Amino acid sequence: MAERKGASTVTLSARPRVLGHAAVVGKKEGEGPLAGCFDAVFDDVTMEKESWEQAESALQKEAFTRALDHAGISPSQLDVLFAGDLLDQCTASTFAMRDYSVPLLGQYGACSTMAQTLAMAALAVDSGAADLAAAVTSSHFCSAERQFRYPLTYGGQRTPTAQWTATASGCVVVGMGGKGVRLREITVGRIVDMGVTDANNMGAAMAPAAADTLTRYFEDTDTRPGDYDLIATGDLGACGSSLLKELLSRKGLLLGSNYRDCGLMLFDRETQDVHAGGSGCGCSAAVLCGKILPQIERGELHDVLFVATGALLSATSARQGESIPGIAHLVRLTK
Amino acid sequence: MAERKGASTVTLSARPRVLGHAAVVGKKEGEGPLAGCFDAVFDDVTMEKESWEQAESALQKEAFTRALDHAGISPSQLDVLFAGDLLDQCTASTFAMRDYSVPLLGQYGACSTMAQTLAMAALAVDSGAADLAAAVTSSHFCSAERQFRYPLTYGGQRTPTAQWTATASGCVVVGMGGKGVRLREITVGRIVDMGVTDANNMGAAMAPAAADTLTRYFEDTDTRPGDYDLIATGDLGACGSSLLKELLSRKGLLLGSNYRDCGLMLFDRETQDVHAGGSGCGCSAAVLCGKILPQIERGELHDVLFVATGALLSATSARQGESIPGIAHLVRLTK
Repeated sequence: MAERKGASTVTLSARPRVLGHAAVVGKKEGEGPLAGCFDAVFDDVTMEKESWEQAESALQKEAFTRALDHAGISPSQLDVLFAGDLLDQCTASTFAMRDYSVPLLGQYGACSTMAQTLAMAALAVDSGAADLAAAVTSSHFCSAERQFRYPLTYGGQRTPTAQWTATASGCVVVGMGGKGVRLREITVGRIVDMGVTDANNMGAAMAPAAADTLTRYFEDTDTRPGDYDLIATGDLGACGSSLLKELLSRKGLLLGSNYRDCGLMLFDRETQDVHAGGSGCGCSAAVLCGKILPQIERGELHDVLFVATGALLSATSARQGESIPGIAHLVRLTK
Repeated sequence: MAERKGASTVTLSARPRVLGHAAVVGKKEGEGPLAGCFDAVFDDVTMEKESWEQAESALQKEAFTRALDHAGISPSQLDVLFAGDLLDQCTASTFAMRDYSVPLLGQYGACSTMAQTLAMAALAVDSGAADLAAAVTSSHFCSAERQFRYPLTYGGQRTPTAQWTATASGCVVVGMGGKGVRLREITVGRIVDMGVTDANNMGAAMAPAAADTLTRYFEDTDTRPGDYDLIATGDLGACGSSLLKELLSRKGLLLGSNYRDCGLMLFDRETQDVHAGGSGCGCSAAVLCGKILPQIERGELHDVLFVATGALLSATSARQGESIPGIAHLVRLTK
């Protein structure tokens, strides 16, 4: 049974847990600082498919089937799947999942989707609506670039504030029992739009939303940043992370060495030419499933706030000169 | 507390109810058979905005604020809002809601979105995660046409199987207590893709999904179509409705005069030139909020299955020759 805590936070008291998880990535992601953390690295990011969109769906299938394998269940045992991605009408997820006959609820939170789907899967299990639920998301550099920016063959220059959409997918299976990572609390994000119109600086557009969600969470729980082993945003990149620290410090909330951003964890900015860092919903998904969850399982981390952030623009809204609404959803994870 | 019933259905035993609802539509919808059912009819479908996308957001705001007014609450009292639409990256909802500071979870189910958001809002309240939740969705003929088909000024011919995207929005506020319509059961849809590739015959693409969801629901609950006052799909149109009847009859499930399709309820096909009927997530939303919920409230209907159907294609997937995956989510509503 879920219980409200403060104005905006929900405590999942039935003790839903992670039963299995998987992270799969492309070549570039597999060459970064987290090399060795992933279930699979695909050097051929076409996934031997005819389109980048099909390649992304294939990547998501890999994460999905591997996470279910780790949980020891088959797709037919899943009561509900929460899935989403960056493509128009969430087609990476739809076409990935159409072969599995799984009850599906499409989610859209841009790069916040991993936290959103995980929160929904946790709530579905906590409430008794599902015995087994899963959360999956993906992104692919090539499908995202041509949809949101330019065709790859155009060879457009990237600005220093631009982030690199990760070719990656992560999936988490949630259920009861076992000794997996516990999903403890959820804070659903609100849209915060400070008027940023630069689609090449999404970190700045999302940082105020992350600050809003974290501030509300700390208020609701009467805790402070130092109370957690890790606070992981995803994906603010270098610009957005600095801005988040500044915004929170103005409220007396100091983010120290326990603060990391998934977009800065996935790539080495010195050697991998990703400018401000990684992004895309697959980025925080892969860092969560490949790095953070295993660290909690091994006892290296005990209490983690996973705060995935999304920039809710479209190519149409950007062309129409609209500013970029940001959002950030939080899930607390413990041993 | 939610309880599972059969393989795929969830019973909401904490008795969540509809506290308020609203439906707003454009000129054409206001001239159809349901004229007089809506909270507002906007003859100027530009909503005095500079783009069709902004117009759709304005329409959604109208449904949202009116539903909250009817429920007697302010946006700041809402614990969570489930919102979605047909536009790329769900921007009609995002830009509609950015002024309200409401915790938001973006949903994508194409034209099934009203059932999906309603199911999620009901589950959020039933589980205790939210005291007050809302579900909202919208569609706009002009924003949908140019995104999925052709620019309006191109003047493309429509095929006889094509449906007319409704310019409409509906919103439902869910909470506990009162005497509003009860949200009783949920069956989450699975993707069914029978290989239809004609983006101008989405009824045919969605009908198998509706048949799948209804078949699973009847099995789980050990009931039959005749046990309900109304089974309302939305929006299969003329082609999809016939196909659904045929598919279910092969399983011995006969849909009689208690079966209606929201796409056929909203428009008069004889006089309104909408070809196979209405579509768009605003269609079933407006019929639900403008017609069905009031009928239950007045005691004219007692037990209703609302089964909204979605065609999960994108312009990109259609251009790439992909078939159209269908989905249908079910919510049972009673007095």
